Amino acid sequence: MQNNQAHKAKVVTFGEVLMRLSPSENRKLQQSNQMDFFFGGTEMNVASSLSYFGMNTQQITNVSDDLVGEAAIAAMRHAGIDVSAVNKVEHPLGIYFLEVGASMRSSKIAYNRLHGSFANIRPEQVNWEKTLENCNYLHWTGISPAISEGAYQSLKEGLEIAQKKGIKVTADPAYRSNLWQYGKDGHEILNELVGLSNIFIGGVNEINEILKTDFSFDEAGFIEASKKLISECPNIEKVFDKIRTGVSASWQKIYGRAWTGSAYITTPELEITSVVDRIGTGDAYAAGLIYGLDHYNDQKALEFANAACALKHTILGDANLVSVEEVLEVMQGNTGGRIKR
Amino acid sequence: MQNNQAHKAKVVTFGEVLMRLSPSENRKLQQSNQMDFFFGGTEMNVASSLSYFGMNTQQITNVSDDLVGEAAIAAMRHAGIDVSAVNKVEHPLGIYFLEVGASMRSSKIAYNRLHGSFANIRPEQVNWEKTLENCNYLHWTGISPAISEGAYQSLKEGLEIAQKKGIKVTADPAYRSNLWQYGKDGHEILNELVGLSNIFIGGVNEINEILKTDFSFDEAGFIEASKKLISECPNIEKVFDKIRTGVSASWQKIYGRAWTGSAYITTPELEITSVVDRIGTGDAYAAGLIYGLDHYNDQKALEFANAACALKHTILGDANLVSVEEVLEVMQGNTGGRIKR
Amino acid sequence: MQNNQAHKAKVVTFGEVLMRLSPSENRKLQQSNQMDFFFGGTEMNVASSLSYFGMNTQQITNVSDDLVGEAAIAAMRHAGIDVSAVNKVEHPLGIYFLEVGASMRSSKIAYNRLHGSFANIRPEQVNWEKTLENCNYLHWTGISPAISEGAYQSLKEGLEIAQKKGIKVTADPAYRSNLWQYGKDGHEILNELVGLSNIFIGGVNEINEILKTDFSFDEAGFIEASKKLISECPNIEKVFDKIRTGVSASWQKIYGRAWTGSAYITTPELEITSVVDRIGTGDAYAAGLIYGLDHYNDQKALEFANAACALKHTILGDANLVSVEEVLEVMQGNTGGRIKR
Amino acid sequence: MQNNQAHKAKVVTFGEVLMRLSPSENRKLQQSNQMDFFFGGTEMNVASSLSYFGMNTQQITNVSDDLVGEAAIAAMRHAGIDVSAVNKVEHPLGIYFLEVGASMRSSKIAYNRLHGSFANIRPEQVNWEKTLENCNYLHWTGISPAISEGAYQSLKEGLEIAQKKGIKVTADPAYRSNLWQYGKDGHEILNELVGLSNIFIGGVNEINEILKTDFSFDEAGFIEASKKLISECPNIEKVFDKIRTGVSASWQKIYGRAWTGSAYITTPELEITSVVDRIGTGDAYAAGLIYGLDHYNDQKALEFANAACALKHTILGDANLVSVEEVLEVMQGNTGGRIKR
Amino acid sequence: MQNNQAHKAKVVTFGEVLMRLSPSENRKLQQSNQMDFFFGGTEMNVASSLSYFGMNTQQITNVSDDLVGEAAIAAMRHAGIDVSAVNKVEHPLGIYFLEVGASMRSSKIAYNRLHGSFANIRPEQVNWEKTLENCNYLHWTGISPAISEGAYQSLKEGLEIAQKKGIKVTADPAYRSNLWQYGKDGHEILNELVGLSNIFIGGVNEINEILKTDFSFDEAGFIEASKKLISECPNIEKVFDKIRTGVSASWQKIYGRAWTGSAYITTPELEITSVVDRIGTGDAYAAGLIYGLDHYNDQKALEFANAACALKHTILGDANLVSVEEVLEVMQGNTGGRIKR
Amino acid sequence: MQNNQAHKAKVVTFGEVLMRLSPSENRKLQQSNQMDFFFGGTEMNVASSLSYFGMNTQQITNVSDDLVGEAAIAAMRHAGIDVSAVNKVEHPLGIYFLEVGASMRSSKIAYNRLHGSFANIRPEQVNWEKTLENCNYLHWTGISPAISEGAYQSLKEGLEIAQKKGIKVTADPAYRSNLWQYGKDGHEILNELVGLSNIFIGGVNEINEILKTDFSFDEAGFIEASKKLISECPNIEKVFDKIRTGVSASWQKIYGRAWTGSAYITTPELEITSVVDRIGTGDAYAAGLIYGLDHYNDQKALEFANAACALKHTILGDANLVSVEEVLEVMQGNTGGRIKR
Repeated sequence: MQNNQAHKAKVVTFGEVLMRLSPSENRKLQQSNQMDFFFGGTEMNVASSLSYFGMNTQQITNVSDDLVGEAAIAAMRHAGIDVSAVNKVEHPLGIYFLEVGASMRSSKIAYNRLHGSFANIRPEQVNWEKTLENCNYLHWTGISPAISEGAYQSLKEGLEIAQKKGIKVTADPAYRSNLWQYGKDGHEILNELVGLSNIFIGGVNEINEILKTDFSFDEAGFIEASKKLISECPNIEKVFDKIRTGVSASWQKIYGRAWTGSAYITTPELEITSVVDRIGTGDAYAAGLIYGLDHYNDQKALEFANAACALKHTILGDANLVSVEEVLEVMQGNTGGRIKR
Repeated sequence: MQNNQAHKAKVVTFGEVLMRLSPSENRKLQQSNQMDFFFGGTEMNVASSLSYFGMNTQQITNVSDDLVGEAAIAAMRHAGIDVSAVNKVEHPLGIYFLEVGASMRSSKIAYNRLHGSFANIRPEQVNWEKTLENCNYLHWTGISPAISEGAYQSLKEGLEIAQKKGIKVTADPAYRSNLWQYGKDGHEILNELVGLSNIFIGGVNEINEILKTDFSFDEAGFIEASKKLISECPNIEKVFDKIRTGVSASWQKIYGRAWTGSAYITTPELEITSVVDRIGTGDAYAAGLIYGLDHYNDQKALEFANAACALKHTILGDANLVSVEEVLEVMQGNTGGRIKR
Repeated sequence: MQNNQAHKAKVVTFGEVLMRLSPSENRKLQQSNQMDFFFGGTEMNVASSLSYFGMNTQQITNVSDDLVGEAAIAAMRHAGIDVSAVNKVEHPLGIYFLEVGASMRSSKIAYNRLHGSFANIRPEQVNWEKTLENCNYLHWTGISPAISEGAYQSLKEGLEIAQKKGIKVTADPAYRSNLWQYGKDGHEILNELVGLSNIFIGGVNEINEILKTDFSFDEAGFIEASKKLISECPNIEKVFDKIRTGVSASWQKIYGRAWTGSAYITTPELEITSVVDRIGTGDAYAAGLIYGLDHYNDQKALEFANAACALKHTILGDANLVSVEEVLEVMQGNTGGRIKR
Repeated sequence: MQNNQAHKAKVVTFGEVLMRLSPSENRKLQQSNQMDFFFGGTEMNVASSLSYFGMNTQQITNVSDDLVGEAAIAAMRHAGIDVSAVNKVEHPLGIYFLEVGASMRSSKIAYNRLHGSFANIRPEQVNWEKTLENCNYLHWTGISPAISEGAYQSLKEGLEIAQKKGIKVTADPAYRSNLWQYGKDGHEILNELVGLSNIFIGGVNEINEILKTDFSFDEAGFIEASKKLISECPNIEKVFDKIRTGVSASWQKIYGRAWTGSAYITTPELEITSVVDRIGTGDAYAAGLIYGLDHYNDQKALEFANAACALKHTILGDANLVSVEEVLEVMQGNTGGRIKR
Repeated sequence: MQNNQAHKAKVVTFGEVLMRLSPSENRKLQQSNQMDFFFGGTEMNVASSLSYFGMNTQQITNVSDDLVGEAAIAAMRHAGIDVSAVNKVEHPLGIYFLEVGASMRSSKIAYNRLHGSFANIRPEQVNWEKTLENCNYLHWTGISPAISEGAYQSLKEGLEIAQKKGIKVTADPAYRSNLWQYGKDGHEILNELVGLSNIFIGGVNEINEILKTDFSFDEAGFIEASKKLISECPNIEKVFDKIRTGVSASWQKIYGRAWTGSAYITTPELEITSVVDRIGTGDAYAAGLIYGLDHYNDQKALEFANAACALKHTILGDANLVSVEEVLEVMQGNTGGRIKR
Repeated sequence: MQNNQAHKAKVVTFGEVLMRLSPSENRKLQQSNQMDFFFGGTEMNVASSLSYFGMNTQQITNVSDDLVGEAAIAAMRHAGIDVSAVNKVEHPLGIYFLEVGASMRSSKIAYNRLHGSFANIRPEQVNWEKTLENCNYLHWTGISPAISEGAYQSLKEGLEIAQKKGIKVTADPAYRSNLWQYGKDGHEILNELVGLSNIFIGGVNEINEILKTDFSFDEAGFIEASKKLISECPNIEKVFDKIRTGVSASWQKIYGRAWTGSAYITTPELEITSVVDRIGTGDAYAAGLIYGLDHYNDQKALEFANAACALKHTILGDANLVSVEEVLEVMQGNTGGRIKR
């Protein structure tokens, strides 16, 4: 029988596609002469994962009009992401260099993105009306508006149109203090954009940044912070958080918690004792959550997001190349690593 | 501005997707512990090249319903090929092993395909009517009907529908004697299928195989053979051939010749003194021809095909990852290898 | 002094040689363009390990008459296995693809073997009388008779001759339900072949499959099951089992237990916290057991088998490339990883 | 005996250090997941080569204050370049991506440098007085003043100080039209800076660009152009040119010609039939020339430069890792590739 | 601003530079066809680490006068080590082969050094007076005098001059019984050389070897042994030891203890659960200690040494490529592996 | 049918097994961090090639009693060489480093062999009587007696026994002036050993070295030299030479000539325009000759040797991994590099 792609929900993401460059085998750059590369970026990571889960995905972005941009577009197609809203422009693609840590040695990242093709995006380059046709979810993160005024304005226009169309907007509004170099107050802009969103993916940290509050990190603090956020940003319906404990760069623990608007729910903690790749685990959580909300109730959605996040630690690269079946298995406690023949 | 994919011609291919496995650095398999792999196969190579030329492409095929088939589909998407007519079945994907030769040492190939997913294709798995909607070209080769009865029957049905719909059928009907193990006479079947085709990509060798004739390989022989073919298979309009001279596995010369139905035309000979990859050069010629016929007159189409074929010798893997601009440059004689900055 | 190879016991194995293909660095196939390969297969793994332990080994098998088969034969020679009973036939060598898991992500395997060179073996291709000359042990597993009628018939003939010659037959008769596609009842055939064997390498699971019983997995169940097996298959003298606990794909625990015909014995549990390769650990156990039974008493043989199995988790590839000395060190509790200079 | 580094001439270079990223095996970026990298840039290439010839070298540049900049500095040290005049700044290191061509396929380059650490250099960051102490040669190219106003001003200051100190200034003032984006007329600036230089490394093309003249490319044209240049820029003493003929990207021919102020001299043509790396061959010529002028007469210097340039085509990476002895051998006609044991 | 390298302490090391050759991915040599290589050796490892900590370093050694020696010198420069006291001689560079263990499998090393370039060092090849100008620390280990009579005599001369000049001599006098093949009693020679040293890096084991005593390994034994050592070798001021517990080759624990001449001090234990590379961890401790003693009090120096040693387990290769900042972070307990952006 | 290994001629070789270490991609060692390795050495190369041609082969040698020696033995087994006459001794295996040249850049080699396991061979370690049982050919080269007195004495004893047994001795007595460091006159020893040989593989150069004569290199000189050699060393029956012309390191031409005792014969010249590996081409010639003499007349043997030598230039590593069929094809002029499917 031929593939049936009918009746799947469509998710649109807006954000930068980055090339990740990383020496293999935990090497430091100065002891290498070769690097692995991957195309990712927080929003593309979400789109890729949703695509592997079987959803329809499309990303709005700018890439460079050169051999690097061509490769980026091919990588998006490889991941099953619709590239018809990708522009080619005369600025280089954003890059980041990653030295992968191990045990007590932290990973290090160096960016080259602030004058790149996405930083130069302008609202008139984006046809939101067309792209949001038949769209069910629009996902954004706090990285995009932090890159440039143009990225911020483009995103804001999209969120407004999405709200009008009744599209569910999912926000992962992490505040990164070393971005936001174009002269705006990041806290206020994130506050404005969260006001145009429906699902908040973040916790006390993010709420405190956005509301300039000082809630505590325990259960009570999280519930209060969530309620405060919902009262300030009434489009927000639910708040989904994850709690990470780092034993070392190679050994991490993770569980999810959420305020559903009426209840506090949590998941069991999952433990990853041999981390393969730490990058994109938050994006895997966000993608798991979007898939989960589209298919399950809040409790199961949260568990799906947490299991997806845990599995991402076992996958090389930025995107979570796992299937729904693999996530469900972990949710069911099959974590002993039996070989699938 | 967003990508504009409107008004491009669509080409449909029918054929097997093969995984190619090859030790790197000209190694023999027995001195290796690592292989490079590529997904290709003669028809997918044509589709990939046309996709890089900017045409819309789709392939009808079966892949394995396992991790190998998933990777094959992702590779097709990466190449820009529409995968909505790809089936997943419970048979392994076809494979070939390649030991790359050098100088006077020939390359060697070992196949594992005769019980694979494509060999098990059956006519009822293919929705020709739907796939050929809005299609301008249907391309097939002599490999597909040689694999299995099911592949032959499926292809035949498609050619008949294409003829009814007025779709231009391009045939590359090479006869491979070590295939054709399912009990049919390959010469007769190819004859039948060429009868349902419009453009013949092949030369005296192929015509002699199909018509069981004995034309000579010189210009006169080629013209006579072409006329004979057209008289026997009146749907055929034109015959496009290429002449290869192998100085060694690393040094090849190539030129094109054609019978346009009314004239004999040729191209200058191109010389590749440092062959990177010899596989898929015929497919690059076929793809160049289809693009050429869709955009240019016969002479320029033949030159485009020949230049595309020559360029493929410089590209690793099965598919011809070159742009129209690169082919045109070679046609214009810019073969000195200046760096493009 | 020159190598002295006199007076070593000879072990013959019968089974398929498979090429294993696996992306490196825990990658999924679809994010790779290169694979590592190894030649293995359960019986060759046993032969290789015994060869590294210093025993004489020979394997009866069919390989493809092409570049892949040549490489397989060279790999067998590399491992010190006598290849004079290997046939070259016109069918491709069996293959499996492995995506290596990590932490809670399971490894995945896809096979391509059911129409391969070994599946096409026929009794008349095997000269059992000659190969079993001077042979002390004949080892078989439940995979071989599950592949094809020809493999089953060939093996059965060998076991009968071995019993006549007084050769000790070791059986590792795991039942794999996704094989056995040629129309026979696997349970019954395994029962028949175990009846022609002397050492049973397996536990409650395998006994339940073969006898269609339902013994429990605890100590009492194991002892009862073993006694029942011996009463049904009186050639069987002893039953050697191993118990694996998977913390994750990267962290495994293992211990051995056995019914010696008169006593229940066990080993301490060994823990592998950083698994390098999970494949072939059962084969390492079987090889350790054969070596152990040839050199030690039952208790020490079981401990040797368990330590060999644990060490295999630290070795890349299918075969257990460790020496007797390395196994003995682990048996003695030296597991702290001091550097040997 | 201990290394003796006394009494060697010192050469200072001023320019950008670039990271080169390139897929291996002639791959296109989109078919790769790994890249080789090298640190280079036209001026560092000259410094490296001179260092391998045994001269003292130092480079003035800015690198990024991150893991990439650290690796760049280590690479400079590896090449024997004094790094005490290297600044670390808060801008990313310049990068270029290279797809290596073959036969008639051209290499392609994509740059990411215009907002990098070197582009942000400012005159006050450079201590020319200190760096030019004990310096014999100062080398610059037309790339540096084309990058940014700051780079231009910094360089100009250095040239002025060099002229005052009587340091020999060697200029390789190629005009790259796709640089020069900061608003100045490149022709005029190059004219100004050549006016502060003593040795002109370039030919009719470069002279025409700088003087806005239209001399022909034959011998007579070259001599006239050289004389005109010397009359316009009286600090210039000699003009050294090289003539390249590209059979293909893999096969190049090269010879040198010069106007010594009083005579026209040339070298035999050298032919490289298997090009390993085309990048940096002009820099190898410049370095060969500087070494040659420091040790030999004009004729031998030109031959040394031409042989060094030819040899660079056989060396992977940007820098010419060959010794004086290797260059002299090629000058003496020993090009048959005997193994040196 | 330009790099300021003024007023840094200078450390001189004396010892062999070895090429380490190691199959990647935990492979055994016999299953590989490729090896990674690094230049190291215990004293160069100390110099490299001190160089990354920002100190001035120089090593006295002999390398081969061939392509291997050239690469060794470039590697030393890369690490920031002054190579002006390196001699090139007509003997091959020392080599060691490393098979990296995992879990309970030990790493294995095979050496090829006893007839190498360093083993052939002679006192007249070393200009100690010049090299020790402006030197603050001279570091040696028990390996050097064990290699050859010439190495012993050269070192002894250096220690005598250092004592005269008031340079602080740090000794890491491990006794390796499989060296010392040139006919001298290693215990006595080490005793003599420790008598010319000021800081003893070692513990009960080393003291027992040198003094031919039998102190116990507990705290009391360590203190007594240290006091005895100081009474026998009165130049020794302090004794710095580290205690390693190997859970497996992949999981190690480490803490430091010292007798400061007047007090017993210790550090918390650090745990490395995913060892990347076990080689050179002792050298990382020694380097950490030298840096620590130059900058901090004894307690902080010991903690710095222990943290540096722990971090080395996460770095591939022989040298500890970490910065002072990274060590301080681990000392402060930040071992959870957060990504540094 | 099972492999039939009866009635094949057996060839014994005596010589050193060397590990070759070489950076890939034409890199220089100092720009690499990884090397490919192969086990070879001139005599093992001959044995390997003869084994691939289907002859029985055995090598007498010493290897190191460590992980390197184990890998060397496995490599010999992989090549089909009988290893029962290989000793393990307490000296490291010989090594050579190779930087592969290209075009006019020569390859460079650095050795580490003079204190290795083979250099320490002693006559009492070799059981010639047993090894030469059923032997048809004994092959030696001028390298072995040049390594050490022990190697010379061991070889001489073997040649004497071979002459007694009527075994055909083939000699490839190249004189390498940078060996012969143990105090004997290499010319005289080679003269003595050639006196114990039957087939001389070498030309005017080698004869002049051995006889201390001064024959010219043209046809007449070769014939005279051959006659002189036969008169001085009457066991010699025939002289087989090859003439190499190096266009560059990447482009070589080769033809064979011989004096059969009664006639001068030659072969056509073969041209290798893309050399993959230049090492071991002389050994490939020698192996081709031995196979040829065992199967064909002198003319065809010489052509077989020349074609085998040419093919070796296309094979990576030291040994000529080609079959008899591949050599015959080249002899028949099929050098155009058609793919073998």
